[in-house]
Amino acid sequence: MARTSSTPDPARRNERSRQAILTAAAELATELGYAKLTIEAIAARAGVGKQTIYRWWPSKGAVVFDAFLAANENEAGGLDLPDTGDLAADLRALLRPAAEQLADPAFERVGRAISAEIQLDPTLLREYRARLLGPLLEVTRDRLRSAQRAGQLAEDLDLDLAVDLVYGPLHYRWLLGTGPIDQAYADAMVEALLRALRP
Amino acid sequence: MARTSSTPDPARRNERSRQAILTAAAELATELGYAKLTIEAIAARAGVGKQTIYRWWPSKGAVVFDAFLAANENEAGGLDLPDTGDLAADLRALLRPAAEQLADPAFERVGRAISAEIQLDPTLLREYRARLLGPLLEVTRDRLRSAQRAGQLAEDLDLDLAVDLVYGPLHYRWLLGTGPIDQAYADAMVEALLRALRP
Repeated sequence: MARTSSTPDPARRNERSRQAILTAAAELATELGYAKLTIEAIAARAGVGKQTIYRWWPSKGAVVFDAFLAANENEAGGLDLPDTGDLAADLRALLRPAAEQLADPAFERVGRAISAEIQLDPTLLREYRARLLGPLLEVTRDRLRSAQRAGQLAEDLDLDLAVDLVYGPLHYRWLLGTGPIDQAYADAMVEALLRALRP
Repeated sequence: MARTSSTPDPARRNERSRQAILTAAAELATELGYAKLTIEAIAARAGVGKQTIYRWWPSKGAVVFDAFLAANENEAGGLDLPDTGDLAADLRALLRPAAEQLADPAFERVGRAISAEIQLDPTLLREYRARLLGPLLEVTRDRLRSAQRAGQLAEDLDLDLAVDLVYGPLHYRWLLGTGPIDQAYADAMVEALLRALRP
């Protein structure tokens, strides 16, 4: 039997509220920065009561973290890395947008807070690894494995070390501010990576 | 005129108190972890009043951070990197102790808290860069410059990118737990680095 719009499904209403809260948290974290963000402000923008947020999340950190994961999961959309056969081009297609995101002041305002929360809370680190980092590293290893099969990388390449090389230098530069982050840096890093990883 | 021990120099007494506080903060941060550490506990172990600590440092974060910098400055002792002419051996001599420190559970307890504080507080990041990271990267660039002069590295090597490659992957593995950190990892990283940096 068809539902009418005047008898909304509670599960669907819950899901709509949850999405509104995550969207509000992501927007406000970007606009205000993490420190100035409050649960009250998230509730007001999402059009829900504070208690609705506290029913699903124990703290401001938890809801902002969830919003960050949700936004990045959507953006990554299944996390397919390109495999055109041209490893250099595919690595550039991976590192250029990563550099662009890290250099974006809007990302900066929430990214550093998220990164600090992850370090201080082992539960958040586990969730970050399970939902975002793990899948990213897995598709990266898959792309490198494909290059190994094509004879472009050494057969005995340690893929775990390789992913540290792919993401570590850019992450280090962002976290500690060792230099500017731009497309030229991403491209130069790809050149260095290929030298490091080739047979 | 010689001072007697019954008329202590106030400046010297201050310095002794300051050192006792830094030592107590470093010990307690390692023993208890950052979250459980209190100013009261630091004062008690250092044999000073709480007010003495608050006269010199505005917060727990500030005193623990200072203790961390002091400990690492002393350990680094002028921060001379070896220059034996053998770049592979010298990079191993750099990355093996770094890997050992990062894998040490005692360092883990305070290192993550410090790392998070640095990300949340731009003033601490500036101080960390001025007192510890900056000098470390400078001597690292010096060692790589010497290898350039010896023809072991490309003349046009971007030294800022090179130091990100030297420290970034190890730092990434430690921060996000992407794999085990041991001597074998440090050695494999040196091999990859040399391939990346050579002409």
